[in-house]
Amino acid sequence: MVVGDFATKRQLVIIGGGPGGYHAAIRAAQLGMEVTLIEKEKLGGVCLHKGCIPSKSLTQAAANLSALSQFNQMGISVTEASFEYDTFTNYYSSVVAGLQKGVEALIKANKIEHLTGKASFMSGERIGIDSGHHFEMYEFEYALIATGSSPLLPDHAALSNRVMTPHTLWKLSGVPASLLIYGEDYFALEAAMAYKQLGSDVNLVIPAEGFGLDASIEKELQRVLKKNKIKVFKNHSWDSAEEASDTVTVTLKKDDGEKVSVEASHVLYAAGYSPNVEDLGLESLGLERDEEGFIIVNEHSQSSIANIYAAGDCTIGMKLASKAIKQGKTAAEHMSGHKSAFSLSLIPFVVHTNPPIASVGLTEEQARAEGYEVKTGQFSMSGNGFASILGQKEGLSKMIMDAKSDVVLGVHMMGAGAIEMIQAGTYALEMVAREEDLAYPIYAHPALNEAWLEAIESISGKAIHVPPARKKEKSSV
Amino acid sequence: MVVGDFATKRQLVIIGGGPGGYHAAIRAAQLGMEVTLIEKEKLGGVCLHKGCIPSKSLTQAAANLSALSQFNQMGISVTEASFEYDTFTNYYSSVVAGLQKGVEALIKANKIEHLTGKASFMSGERIGIDSGHHFEMYEFEYALIATGSSPLLPDHAALSNRVMTPHTLWKLSGVPASLLIYGEDYFALEAAMAYKQLGSDVNLVIPAEGFGLDASIEKELQRVLKKNKIKVFKNHSWDSAEEASDTVTVTLKKDDGEKVSVEASHVLYAAGYSPNVEDLGLESLGLERDEEGFIIVNEHSQSSIANIYAAGDCTIGMKLASKAIKQGKTAAEHMSGHKSAFSLSLIPFVVHTNPPIASVGLTEEQARAEGYEVKTGQFSMSGNGFASILGQKEGLSKMIMDAKSDVVLGVHMMGAGAIEMIQAGTYALEMVAREEDLAYPIYAHPALNEAWLEAIESISGKAIHVPPARKKEKSSV
Repeated sequence: MVVGDFATKRQLVIIGGGPGGYHAAIRAAQLGMEVTLIEKEKLGGVCLHKGCIPSKSLTQAAANLSALSQFNQMGISVTEASFEYDTFTNYYSSVVAGLQKGVEALIKANKIEHLTGKASFMSGERIGIDSGHHFEMYEFEYALIATGSSPLLPDHAALSNRVMTPHTLWKLSGVPASLLIYGEDYFALEAAMAYKQLGSDVNLVIPAEGFGLDASIEKELQRVLKKNKIKVFKNHSWDSAEEASDTVTVTLKKDDGEKVSVEASHVLYAAGYSPNVEDLGLESLGLERDEEGFIIVNEHSQSSIANIYAAGDCTIGMKLASKAIKQGKTAAEHMSGHKSAFSLSLIPFVVHTNPPIASVGLTEEQARAEGYEVKTGQFSMSGNGFASILGQKEGLSKMIMDAKSDVVLGVHMMGAGAIEMIQAGTYALEMVAREEDLAYPIYAHPALNEAWLEAIESISGKAIHVPPARKKEKSSV
Repeated sequence: MVVGDFATKRQLVIIGGGPGGYHAAIRAAQLGMEVTLIEKEKLGGVCLHKGCIPSKSLTQAAANLSALSQFNQMGISVTEASFEYDTFTNYYSSVVAGLQKGVEALIKANKIEHLTGKASFMSGERIGIDSGHHFEMYEFEYALIATGSSPLLPDHAALSNRVMTPHTLWKLSGVPASLLIYGEDYFALEAAMAYKQLGSDVNLVIPAEGFGLDASIEKELQRVLKKNKIKVFKNHSWDSAEEASDTVTVTLKKDDGEKVSVEASHVLYAAGYSPNVEDLGLESLGLERDEEGFIIVNEHSQSSIANIYAAGDCTIGMKLASKAIKQGKTAAEHMSGHKSAFSLSLIPFVVHTNPPIASVGLTEEQARAEGYEVKTGQFSMSGNGFASILGQKEGLSKMIMDAKSDVVLGVHMMGAGAIEMIQAGTYALEMVAREEDLAYPIYAHPALNEAWLEAIESISGKAIHVPPARKKEKSSV
């Protein structure tokens, strides 16, 4: 290894080429900064290679496979259908390769310096990059840490081809015969639904009572899981796992301490993440982090050291690529001297189950806990005409409003179209929409969106496709 | 026939049980009115029985069938697939039957008097209902005309099993070998795309140069039509059609007067509508109508006679169920003494082609014609990650903004998810959103919605997934 003699100067050094890092790099370049992007593996990060893209390919494949029976009812006679895992792997790999190529081309087109290597801070102005055969030192004006996070490893178990985390799941060479999933986040839910619909026997183990969704959505979700024959072990925590030649026996602990054993051909442990900050030399910087090690940032994505920013999964808060992207762009804008800030209160939360779930803003429970006088409206997708055409009548839409001001506090949906529709909820929250703002416009017909209108109208007992309550309350326009 | 001796009194009499009529009936009942709903055929009207529901079942079936090749690429191996027309007919008929049953139940639950018969006005306060074996006279406080419209018939041609309109299309017993479609509206476009994807040879004949969409969408649509091998005859008008035993020969006239003949097994004439007001006795009322006979209404759905309202396709303006629904509810609210008005400027326009098209607000051309200084941004769906996962990379998103105020003037999209997403555009227009309102929130990732963000960001040259322009313009946040 050759160690450079002196530090070369750079304006902005970004560590990590995932969504947070590459969005920041491009935005900074757009704003006229000179940018150096350091990635130790492939551009695109976990999101592209082991996260969003493979996992949404999986959920989409499962949704497509399970759609075939409905297609048959509609007249599309499909005599035989099977799921070819190799073809699926090739498919998403080619999607990943295409997107990676796109990112590489964008980095180049934006004249961003792209270095491959491992970075670590020498001081608040200096960073070293170890490319294996070479060590170079850079003096930076600004740095952005976007190194992501890694799944926590299961206690008393070794990772293997059978005991997996969300990042190693993609090494599977076929659909597991049976899968035990430990975890309660969107990833666990998506994997449970997808593998079940692709043919696995699925047990889903969650440490609490539910998934932290609005209670009405939670109830419908639990119903759908049951209908899909996914067994949910509530209030069970992970104890250990023991692998035999073709099975894994997982020991779980109930609330009362009693232990239960469940056997599966494969296990997915999806219960939390730790930040990828081990070898960054952050200790010497005195950069503030929370007790789990995640970097504390303000609304400008700035760490406790003014010229060092951080974005994405290595920072406090939800582990979502959408957050990483926003934080990355905000950091780039702020360090370029622009007024820029993000708010996580407007983050849409989506789950690619089948039917999908999407929500933004407060749940009914959160709104009450925050002291709002709440009024709500909801509408079942079974009453929506377009859902009937699709044969996808599961789910519901729910609106949470402040009873005093009529302002929208939260929008929640489970059902066909939820993910595409949720941005409308984000806009409504962003623009402090009131009930009448959402009830006034014309909604296309027949359309899934009409379910939202009926949810809104139901707040005042005026949904058209809901029979009047027995004791009709006085209503007014 | 028995003619009643005297008129019985009714508060509100609604003529027509389609979407305009039944929504009005239920809303009026919700607001405490006594409602009589007169329908000569089945509740649900054209929308349910010959319009929205069958046609969207058709477009959905076609989209599903054409999705199978993409499913295969994704690993869902489908060995044989065929389209069974009878099964399809049974499917949508059962959807229609289910929805009709729902409407009937709602009418009953809302204690709405439902009469079957043909209605005609005797005066501005009296209406007669002919139920075939009985004629009854009613004195009304308010009336609502929601009788719909009927497709114009082709010149020099007789309707048959081969020469059809949008309302008779549903008598088909199979997919036509070849289909000539005359018309430029959404229905013509949807039918062209759907039948082509179900196996017909399709020729689409349009009287003008295009379909009246934003020029960028229009261009992409023409490309997609060409790719789908749908031949479009532009600037050709209908002359006549002659039917032989198993073909129809249609004669078209070009701009220069030259005549062309095109042969097809079936013909769909979808070129305009006339209002269903012939036998309503409107002449004696002196109710104002336009030159084509459509009832002129104000923003409260009120006709030129204050206590007579009209809603839907029998009124001036676009022929869309969404408009009928809004007008029906507005009429009910207004006559109940509530402040209520509608605006057609916020009507989302959707086309269930594959990929679908949806837009709301002004096109770029309209905005310029209205005197706005316009700035626009657009983003190709081929740059969207989720579109790549879906394998649906056709289309684009386009934003039209007022350059002076940064206010959104129009949102246009062709591509997967367009119809579900368009409501967000409606909210943006309704709440007079500015560029920054739409750029500020967090967008889920990976999601089709991100295409909108990139379209917005591209206005100022800051879309992440668009390479910088060669001559980079100065940009600012």
